[in-house]
Amino acid sequence: MRTRIYNARILTMEKGREIFHGEIRIEDGKILYVGETQPKEIFEWDEQIDAGGNLVMPGFKNAHTHSPMTFLRSYADDMKLQEWLFDKVFPAEAELTGEDIFWLTKLAVMEYLTSGITAAFDMYKLKEDSARAVRETGFRMVFCGDINDFGGTVEDMEQDYLSYNQNPESLLSYQIGFHAEYTTGKELMKKIAALAEKYEAPVYVHCSETKREVEECREKTSMTPVAYMDSLGLFKYGGGLFHGVHMDDSDFTIMKERSISVVTNPASNLKLASGIAPVKRYLDMGITVAIGTDGPASNNCLDMFREMFLTTGLQKAVCNDPEAVPAMDVLKMATVNGARVMGLSDCDVLSAGKRADLIMIDLMQPNMQPLHNIEKNIVYSGSKQNIRMTMINGKIVYRDGEFFIGESPETVYRNANRIAERILGS
Amino acid sequence: MRTRIYNARILTMEKGREIFHGEIRIEDGKILYVGETQPKEIFEWDEQIDAGGNLVMPGFKNAHTHSPMTFLRSYADDMKLQEWLFDKVFPAEAELTGEDIFWLTKLAVMEYLTSGITAAFDMYKLKEDSARAVRETGFRMVFCGDINDFGGTVEDMEQDYLSYNQNPESLLSYQIGFHAEYTTGKELMKKIAALAEKYEAPVYVHCSETKREVEECREKTSMTPVAYMDSLGLFKYGGGLFHGVHMDDSDFTIMKERSISVVTNPASNLKLASGIAPVKRYLDMGITVAIGTDGPASNNCLDMFREMFLTTGLQKAVCNDPEAVPAMDVLKMATVNGARVMGLSDCDVLSAGKRADLIMIDLMQPNMQPLHNIEKNIVYSGSKQNIRMTMINGKIVYRDGEFFIGESPETVYRNANRIAERILGS
Repeated sequence: MRTRIYNARILTMEKGREIFHGEIRIEDGKILYVGETQPKEIFEWDEQIDAGGNLVMPGFKNAHTHSPMTFLRSYADDMKLQEWLFDKVFPAEAELTGEDIFWLTKLAVMEYLTSGITAAFDMYKLKEDSARAVRETGFRMVFCGDINDFGGTVEDMEQDYLSYNQNPESLLSYQIGFHAEYTTGKELMKKIAALAEKYEAPVYVHCSETKREVEECREKTSMTPVAYMDSLGLFKYGGGLFHGVHMDDSDFTIMKERSISVVTNPASNLKLASGIAPVKRYLDMGITVAIGTDGPASNNCLDMFREMFLTTGLQKAVCNDPEAVPAMDVLKMATVNGARVMGLSDCDVLSAGKRADLIMIDLMQPNMQPLHNIEKNIVYSGSKQNIRMTMINGKIVYRDGEFFIGESPETVYRNANRIAERILGS
Repeated sequence: MRTRIYNARILTMEKGREIFHGEIRIEDGKILYVGETQPKEIFEWDEQIDAGGNLVMPGFKNAHTHSPMTFLRSYADDMKLQEWLFDKVFPAEAELTGEDIFWLTKLAVMEYLTSGITAAFDMYKLKEDSARAVRETGFRMVFCGDINDFGGTVEDMEQDYLSYNQNPESLLSYQIGFHAEYTTGKELMKKIAALAEKYEAPVYVHCSETKREVEECREKTSMTPVAYMDSLGLFKYGGGLFHGVHMDDSDFTIMKERSISVVTNPASNLKLASGIAPVKRYLDMGITVAIGTDGPASNNCLDMFREMFLTTGLQKAVCNDPEAVPAMDVLKMATVNGARVMGLSDCDVLSAGKRADLIMIDLMQPNMQPLHNIEKNIVYSGSKQNIRMTMINGKIVYRDGEFFIGESPETVYRNANRIAERILGS
């Protein structure tokens, strides 16, 4: 399969390379060429796409989410995180079957595509059912280990780690992880650390999302969650923290030393009143920051445009500094840094040899005009409305509002509503 | 012109009335009937629209904006408000001609339509040129007086007030207002107060947007801007404050006593690092809160969905209360309260006799599924992508991505870019 996208503005996200006008050539899921328009030649294209001057750039990476939680959208809103989680979310989730996970993941994937998200770092149970949905839709997903005291074993995680990472051509891969310090006992965390040591692998975990979580960990261990988990050897080969809202000075130092990244989830943190993560400080410290939507139960939407605006807007306000976190930094977090955190080193920028995971942004919309500064337009003014096309591994999966995921939207909606009604009542 | 919208979920925004399934009948810009589906009858319809189960609700009211500032989108971002205003915005604006205002307003109107905004409360100069653009596009606009020491007279304002309010059938109307305390001398404010007294009219003004503004007013007058302006008699017949971020206890009392509303602009306040308005406290005090985008130079987009999420999300975080400002309150601010603040008493809800200013929200999108709680879905998950149709005064002006505004989008974009290049350089 050979595809050529021409007459495009191109933002490769390579360091120092500015937007230029040209074309992209793709073969069997990989980028062959990105650059100025080439002279006409004898070459067979399966598809040629006129971008009409619109912008082509790497797809967004949603670096923290819980896809199957779509069934909990707008359910149990307006509650504190710990009550929300233990009283509402966990009991509802206990009812989920593998078939439910399959449909609910498809619904999430559809929403990702409308927002130009080409890969998600997904933490949830029953991964084989999510995997089925991902394979059918053509989405790219990195699974994150999700075990805790209430479910999952290190042995299962090792098996998943090996099996999902076996084939480098696959749309699926796997990173070691667990739910959180406050749901996972010391012995289990030590076993996870041993597994990470065995494979010299990073470890990913929810961390310091709420003030209460940090206080309770301090009471129990006299350490912050970051320091405590580090003392158990979990971050010997780096890793990543989801949320990272309530941090001590010493936490930043540990993160810097251990090459621990952070995935910020600003909308979820606002909605659950968890707080505002110190993103500017992370950046000042040289800590890698990626962006995630978190799950649809807490956000409630899966929209990278909203997260990008919040990532910079909130820092400007809380740091009292309108220069904080400029637009290009945000675009880097949403693309290159997300790929780095998720281990997708071949999906970060648009250049020859990389995977063709890319999006076309409609500039011919009022919110993108005038074209004074396109990068700023995307971060400060962009919306799902601007996603003209989403391509994953060289295949168009969303274009002009239409999904090419091997399933009708109506079937997915019908099943999602059926599941929500069965579990939550009407 | 008779239009029937049937097979719709309907949210009238009347107090206590929940979403129901039915139809809306419209004649010559006004709603004839909203209710359950009626039996078939012999009746001539110019247009019948099958809503396909999607939601019809009142259009959003953008209660504070500066429409022609579209040319400054993504220009001079990342600066402090006072420097931004005096060093960048004012000099660029000085170059604007009436013809520029005409095109730049059209661009803003297009963006409003994509976001389901059916009316805007617009503060800018050269109103007759904006008025021309508004008349041609079929948008509804309430002009706000914008005079200050650098331009405009009370005499001109009186003339505008009388002429734009002459015809109640017009899409244009006018409210007395001025730029801000910090740009307007005492004598001019006294004259404005006298004009408001003469017509027993409310007065609208930028107020307490930045900490510096409040501090400087205190140094000069020993009063907050609210107290100082009130002492000059400006709010004898009520009025509204744009922004209202930095408030004293006494300010809330004055606002309550004088029936002064507030229009919150959360995205602009974040981006310019102005702060976060005390919206929850306004609501607790029973002060009317409406929502505005502010101008595209400071936001940078004109998107009511972003503003709605921020209006609630920021309050949850800063009040440390996930129950703060529930979704239905936000929808009320974005529709009914906006109409009240702008003096559009016949555009607030969907009921017989009201103006047919309404929108259709596409529920058949992944971000609206499952349909557990539609109101929450709109506020927490909604996006411009969900605006299926925007109707103003019974006329469809935007539908399925197409504009019906008597002008091609390309012409508007071309002119906006030409103006931006001429004034700002390439």
